[in-house]
Amino acid sequence: LKLYESLAADFSSLIEQGVMRAGERIPSVRQASQHHNLSISTVIRAYLLLESRGLVESRPQSGYFVRPLAKPARDRGAQGACPVAVALAPELDVSKLVLSTLRAIGEGSVPFGSPYPDPELFPVARINQHASSIGRQHAHGLAVDLPPGNPELIRQIARRHLENGMAVDPDEIVITAGATEAINLCLQAAARPGDAIAVESPCYYAVLHAIDNAGMRAIEIPAHPQTGIDLDLLEQAIVRDGVAAAVVMPNFQNPLGFQMSDERKRALVDLMHRHGLPLIENDVYNELYYGDTHPGSLKSYDRDGLVLHCNSFSKSLTSAHRIGWALPGRYLARVEKLKFLGTLGTPALPQLAVAQYLQQDGYDFHLRRLRRHLAQQARIMAATVRRFFPAGTTVNEPAGGYVLWVGLPDGVPSLQLYARAHERGISIGPGDMFATGPAFRHYIRLNYSYAWTPDCEAAVKTLGLLVGDLMRHAPEGRRHAAPAPH
Amino acid sequence: LKLYESLAADFSSLIEQGVMRAGERIPSVRQASQHHNLSISTVIRAYLLLESRGLVESRPQSGYFVRPLAKPARDRGAQGACPVAVALAPELDVSKLVLSTLRAIGEGSVPFGSPYPDPELFPVARINQHASSIGRQHAHGLAVDLPPGNPELIRQIARRHLENGMAVDPDEIVITAGATEAINLCLQAAARPGDAIAVESPCYYAVLHAIDNAGMRAIEIPAHPQTGIDLDLLEQAIVRDGVAAAVVMPNFQNPLGFQMSDERKRALVDLMHRHGLPLIENDVYNELYYGDTHPGSLKSYDRDGLVLHCNSFSKSLTSAHRIGWALPGRYLARVEKLKFLGTLGTPALPQLAVAQYLQQDGYDFHLRRLRRHLAQQARIMAATVRRFFPAGTTVNEPAGGYVLWVGLPDGVPSLQLYARAHERGISIGPGDMFATGPAFRHYIRLNYSYAWTPDCEAAVKTLGLLVGDLMRHAPEGRRHAAPAPH
Repeated sequence: LKLYESLAADFSSLIEQGVMRAGERIPSVRQASQHHNLSISTVIRAYLLLESRGLVESRPQSGYFVRPLAKPARDRGAQGACPVAVALAPELDVSKLVLSTLRAIGEGSVPFGSPYPDPELFPVARINQHASSIGRQHAHGLAVDLPPGNPELIRQIARRHLENGMAVDPDEIVITAGATEAINLCLQAAARPGDAIAVESPCYYAVLHAIDNAGMRAIEIPAHPQTGIDLDLLEQAIVRDGVAAAVVMPNFQNPLGFQMSDERKRALVDLMHRHGLPLIENDVYNELYYGDTHPGSLKSYDRDGLVLHCNSFSKSLTSAHRIGWALPGRYLARVEKLKFLGTLGTPALPQLAVAQYLQQDGYDFHLRRLRRHLAQQARIMAATVRRFFPAGTTVNEPAGGYVLWVGLPDGVPSLQLYARAHERGISIGPGDMFATGPAFRHYIRLNYSYAWTPDCEAAVKTLGLLVGDLMRHAPEGRRHAAPAPH
Repeated sequence: LKLYESLAADFSSLIEQGVMRAGERIPSVRQASQHHNLSISTVIRAYLLLESRGLVESRPQSGYFVRPLAKPARDRGAQGACPVAVALAPELDVSKLVLSTLRAIGEGSVPFGSPYPDPELFPVARINQHASSIGRQHAHGLAVDLPPGNPELIRQIARRHLENGMAVDPDEIVITAGATEAINLCLQAAARPGDAIAVESPCYYAVLHAIDNAGMRAIEIPAHPQTGIDLDLLEQAIVRDGVAAAVVMPNFQNPLGFQMSDERKRALVDLMHRHGLPLIENDVYNELYYGDTHPGSLKSYDRDGLVLHCNSFSKSLTSAHRIGWALPGRYLARVEKLKFLGTLGTPALPQLAVAQYLQQDGYDFHLRRLRRHLAQQARIMAATVRRFFPAGTTVNEPAGGYVLWVGLPDGVPSLQLYARAHERGISIGPGDMFATGPAFRHYIRLNYSYAWTPDCEAAVKTLGLLVGDLMRHAPEGRRHAAPAPH
């Protein structure tokens, strides 16, 4: 390949890949000559070659511009790292399925599969205003706040815990990039690679990822849809499988929606305490209760620093700023150190913006409105599913949060429903995302935080019809093969 | 253990861990009683026990305060994965030293120790404006962009690489939370816990942290102040120590400031290629060149996907938004998966804001001004150090970036200079941060990005006087004990 051919080939592939798009000017001959250390005449020959191939056109006095492509741009997903043909294959990897599902959500017009609350519910614009004005005011130190994090935000978080009835030592708080980082750090601080970690089944997939990421093993303990993780089975697993830690979501568990009773919360903390084992609490939905009172955290029963509380503003105030925190108890020093080793710190600007919102704006007012909205939406979604889904469908009654867990009748595989719904612009969360095995392949998770429109009702109706259709076409062998896990 | 003994034990360990520091007030008896749900008398007994052990003292009308520890605080690192001993105290841990140094920078009025460029140099307000308007416009999906990241930002990055003379497949780009995350992910993708990782010595401390964090071992290969990592010693280490990967900063290395020649870059890539080993390139300063042309990246010599390029906007455009990226070559799939398992994705808002800036605003114009400023500041800082520091001081000539590496004469320990400077409101970067051993205890790193004021000149003068003072008081045995590592 001559030099000019090689340069032309580079440009061709950039155009094909969509890096340089139709209508955009490519670098001038002089620029390209400097950048690539090639003579002017070599570049001109390359550009002429591109022009002759119909990839660029010259415009007098302006330079060379990319022409519209005849064939469509190459599809990124097809060659990417995790090309995700959906599912059903035996080697299915949860993280791949989750990635493809989360990707598909962006494409769906009815986002029942979304893991996030509707951003319209959040005062994001207000927080961004704070960010803007803070960005203008501060000359110094706007990069990262070193662990444990921004002191003002820590103070606001300690205050909020106190308002919710839990006195927290601000010195125990470590700010993180969302609860996901908090859970990752707590796992790495409290257990070691190879360890067995007890989780609820079904379990929020990011917890399964964190366990995988840390080189640990998940031991899935059945959770009852109303009362939560089975304590007897948990104790059996501790004794039998040498569980090293547990991760539990006590309030409005994702995806089941239950709230553990105070009694069971205390019993769980006591159980872990008896065995001297760390208990990681994922409590990101605790502000989203539908009842009259804030649900207690497992942390409030902690006597010996064995409870590692993980929390976040992503579900209650802003998902865009990704601010979470941990109260790691006796693992504080290790969590702080791991946070520092891994990332040095947490970006300062969003921390300050959230702290300023908490200090100046009406967080409580916002939350009261948010809870009312979600409680109402929960009733509407459950009623609509009951109305349009075939007999045999089961529906949980979430006590808080924003997701509904739906059991499909007669063993309809949720991944098939997911694929058909996706073709119709409706996203759902297939139950397969919430376990390492097939236990929940006949369940789906529906996000009901988005404003209820006629489109939503139509989408639930469509889903119901698709379920009915899948029931009729399910192979006979499958129809009674899947006992409900509860 | 009785309740009061257990409470006392908790406080003891917090004091030993340095969570509660000498001179700090511990919670009042009433607070502690509430927090721990213990009776007042139990708390009082616990506090009396702590007092009798010499850990706290009571001050009339004020409460209990932590007393200075007789023995050195327990090393947090001692419980961590790879405690990295250094420097003055045998049990001193680099990450602790770095943490305390970075903390102190926030307190100093003259921030020569800062690791960040002066934020005043960056168009942060403009990027925040973009963020605000994007936040208002977008209803959906503002939480995170799943790996590989926001497509528009990826396109802009690919375009920028092209403008800098390196044609990059946009499908190979993974957006990260700054280069720090990119380096962490690349290490974890390309090597395993226990592996030996070759690094330059001196080495940017976050790389040492990343190696520690991944449970790997750093093998420090001397780097020449003008030409970079010693390739013969690197090859010896590969053969002798079974090095599994290397991390190198080819352009304006932090802290030395050199730019590797094209020839040596190629030789390094070839060397790693011959041994079939991954080469992680930390290239965050590549836009900060003082010469006429953009310095090439190691990645541009990569023929077989063994070079993992890590980059960031934090040093060239905004440290506040923490956007970095990796070009992981053949490790792409693993990096993407690790990114997803660890954090699900990167916050979308800052990605969109930066992409919009790159598309609409004058990044090139900004960079040209930034480079002119830094080149000028480099000359001023070097000249001022030469003027005010005692004979025997050595000063590097950085070819880019914003830090000066200064060798102190006659073995003046930089940590002592650091402590005395800190008392005078001047922060510096002690050389001890850049190695796991004492090799650079007589060096300091000075950040010269901040606007040069009479205060800066006075601060350099003060540093020079302090160095002279430390020379006179250095124990005779030390004065010639420290041969320069180069």
